Amino acid sequence: MKTAIRIGMLGMGTVGTGVAKMLTANAEGIRQKTGVPVELKTVLVRTPTKTRSFSAPVQFTTDFREILEDRDIDIIVEVMGGEEPAKSYILQALKAGKHVVTANKDVMAKYGRELFEAAEASGVDLLFEASVGGGIPIIRPLKQCLAGNKIQEVMGIVNGTTNYILTKMTGERADYATVLAEAQAKGYAEADPTADVGGFDAARKIAILASIAFGTRLTVNDVHVEGITRITPYDIEYAGELGYAIKLLAVARDTAKGVDVRVHPAFIPLTHPLAAVSDVFNAIFVKGDAVGETMFYGRGAGEMPTASAVVGDIIDICRNIRHNVNSRILCTCFDNKPLCSVEDVESPFYIRLLVADKPGVLASIAGVFGTQKVSLHSVIQKRKIGDRAEIVLLTYRVPEANMNLALYNLNKLPVVAQVSNIIRVVASDF
Amino acid sequence: MKTAIRIGMLGMGTVGTGVAKMLTANAEGIRQKTGVPVELKTVLVRTPTKTRSFSAPVQFTTDFREILEDRDIDIIVEVMGGEEPAKSYILQALKAGKHVVTANKDVMAKYGRELFEAAEASGVDLLFEASVGGGIPIIRPLKQCLAGNKIQEVMGIVNGTTNYILTKMTGERADYATVLAEAQAKGYAEADPTADVGGFDAARKIAILASIAFGTRLTVNDVHVEGITRITPYDIEYAGELGYAIKLLAVARDTAKGVDVRVHPAFIPLTHPLAAVSDVFNAIFVKGDAVGETMFYGRGAGEMPTASAVVGDIIDICRNIRHNVNSRILCTCFDNKPLCSVEDVESPFYIRLLVADKPGVLASIAGVFGTQKVSLHSVIQKRKIGDRAEIVLLTYRVPEANMNLALYNLNKLPVVAQVSNIIRVVASDF
Repeated sequence: MKTAIRIGMLGMGTVGTGVAKMLTANAEGIRQKTGVPVELKTVLVRTPTKTRSFSAPVQFTTDFREILEDRDIDIIVEVMGGEEPAKSYILQALKAGKHVVTANKDVMAKYGRELFEAAEASGVDLLFEASVGGGIPIIRPLKQCLAGNKIQEVMGIVNGTTNYILTKMTGERADYATVLAEAQAKGYAEADPTADVGGFDAARKIAILASIAFGTRLTVNDVHVEGITRITPYDIEYAGELGYAIKLLAVARDTAKGVDVRVHPAFIPLTHPLAAVSDVFNAIFVKGDAVGETMFYGRGAGEMPTASAVVGDIIDICRNIRHNVNSRILCTCFDNKPLCSVEDVESPFYIRLLVADKPGVLASIAGVFGTQKVSLHSVIQKRKIGDRAEIVLLTYRVPEANMNLALYNLNKLPVVAQVSNIIRVVASDF
Repeated sequence: MKTAIRIGMLGMGTVGTGVAKMLTANAEGIRQKTGVPVELKTVLVRTPTKTRSFSAPVQFTTDFREILEDRDIDIIVEVMGGEEPAKSYILQALKAGKHVVTANKDVMAKYGRELFEAAEASGVDLLFEASVGGGIPIIRPLKQCLAGNKIQEVMGIVNGTTNYILTKMTGERADYATVLAEAQAKGYAEADPTADVGGFDAARKIAILASIAFGTRLTVNDVHVEGITRITPYDIEYAGELGYAIKLLAVARDTAKGVDVRVHPAFIPLTHPLAAVSDVFNAIFVKGDAVGETMFYGRGAGEMPTASAVVGDIIDICRNIRHNVNSRILCTCFDNKPLCSVEDVESPFYIRLLVADKPGVLASIAGVFGTQKVSLHSVIQKRKIGDRAEIVLLTYRVPEANMNLALYNLNKLPVVAQVSNIIRVVASDF
């Protein structure tokens, strides 16, 4: 029986520091649960001499092989982020027979299959609860608690930065650029915010969740992605008037036409539990054939919440080591389901148009929609802007192909000055 | 390697029928995840000849030993409910080396320690995800995902019947008796509703959750319990005016004075995520030192949601059987923490009083509170009723011992006709 389980960690940024703090502060509770002391032995860093907010007897190294080749280390925790060298290190660790815990959505959303195959071949564990939703338990609930269900839908707010921006835009009626600058000043958004505001971070997370939920391998490249940069305070105001909040949603559905997986801003009814998820909080809504609707809510990022998920995975692996079991639950992508084209996805739509303010305009617009079989749920004439009028439309559910054709024809109408915005409506009853 | 894993089930009521349906409908998905067919072989029932909504090649028996002594059966699923004979059957099953999955909160909240000891001695698993929150994943998240945290608080709406009644009372301004009768007619409340409306069902569930969260064994007898029978439409109306919802809350906190665990109606701010949990939905709020605030939401009862949790446990045990591991995670009550007396618990309080409608009354009431160091946050004079007036008070945070003394002295004041109700305020900022 081992007298201690030792960890090598790759990276000592925000999450790594949180993991180190937690392993120290809650050492006794962790020892009780695992039956053995769990020690952080060596950490891979760029600058070993740097002053750190965490102090404990840990070795720093700049050489990955010092961790990889240390037979004393059972578990390698990867919290450096980004694709490379993280992916190569994880792969080498698995091949060397080390269990791996990672918080890395970029790697898991792109190289999941390859890494699981390496873990299986070596008979080790690969856990990644922290890669989606920060501290929110979601991977293990999907893989275990809800494993008896056919999961039909996973839908969530999985990016804190964009949710913070949209919440502020809603509360303060401020425009996107102003709020983004404020978020950057507070450290909630990065200097280059593209990964967050462009929807790519959320796309990686929904690729991971959908793969587990539907049992078929999806990568980030399978996700249809739109960001929040085109959302204006007007859209948010009209959404509120109509009874909706605007959120950046990651949506995945297992449909008869294939797996539909996308990230985009969406109107969501104010009565829906996701509408109340504000600021940097995340929430993931899961619908299964037996369980019905469930939701998981919490802090989707940050030092300690993310560390919570990493340490939960470490404890799980320690329990496996103590019970001489491994690879108990690895890849669960047993199927190979086709993708559904976004053109085939049906939604109601919100459309904001700038049109000539004269009689007969509405009739020509309605005519264009009618030709493409788009039924209008409601039409609201809003602000006057010079000799033009702003019109806001909500449609009934319609395939995107039809909507795209309608928009194409709408843009050709002389009375339509501009299609200002178009946003999908999710979870409505029409 | 086993060619199939076979299940014996005790009971074929609502949950048992759901389990049987799910094992049949999702057999292929379950086989993929466990690597082996999972078959329901024998079911213990009262009347084997009864017509059932479920049809599959299953043996029915009235003799428990036919399941207990069947060497072909690896897992016994207990879904009969109630304390006996369920508890004896579970114990015999564990002693006979059968893995057990149970949905039985009554048994787990009272005999958890004894059953875990038997499981450990026999080297088998005992899983009980369905005993709290129906289909909501909560036991496994607490035992695994959040295992690295010091959990500080668990707070939830864990009884669907009372939440349905309170939601209806709020939406329809109807009184308790009317809504209860309606709930009974719809099958949402039992003919004898005591276990639900008296708070005892919720008490069992919070005893189970608190034991896991704080790592110390609590039984239902450790829980301070108050039900919802004294809640009136007036209280609900005043709560709404003041910005609160009234919910039957199960609360457990790990405090410096000991473990505080109780079930009672509570004012909860409308801005709190639990305030929006309506009808038969359940939600459990967990606060950990690293993860911060998380919430788990879903259907807390019903045939298929509860079956979802049972089948999740079955799959987990099948994975253990396939990997030759057992008792990987059993009892996690490693500590022995003292209980905190409810007298020591501090809350703000809502108090509704009927008093004489004349000058100086408020001064005498305020005097009584002042003597017991109860500070008043707000005082609102409400309805006139004949020559009396109804007064609604919100206090600042105060120990219950002080509040009880204040109420005792208040009742002795000649100007106080009646203390109509007193309800704790939870999660407020004062």
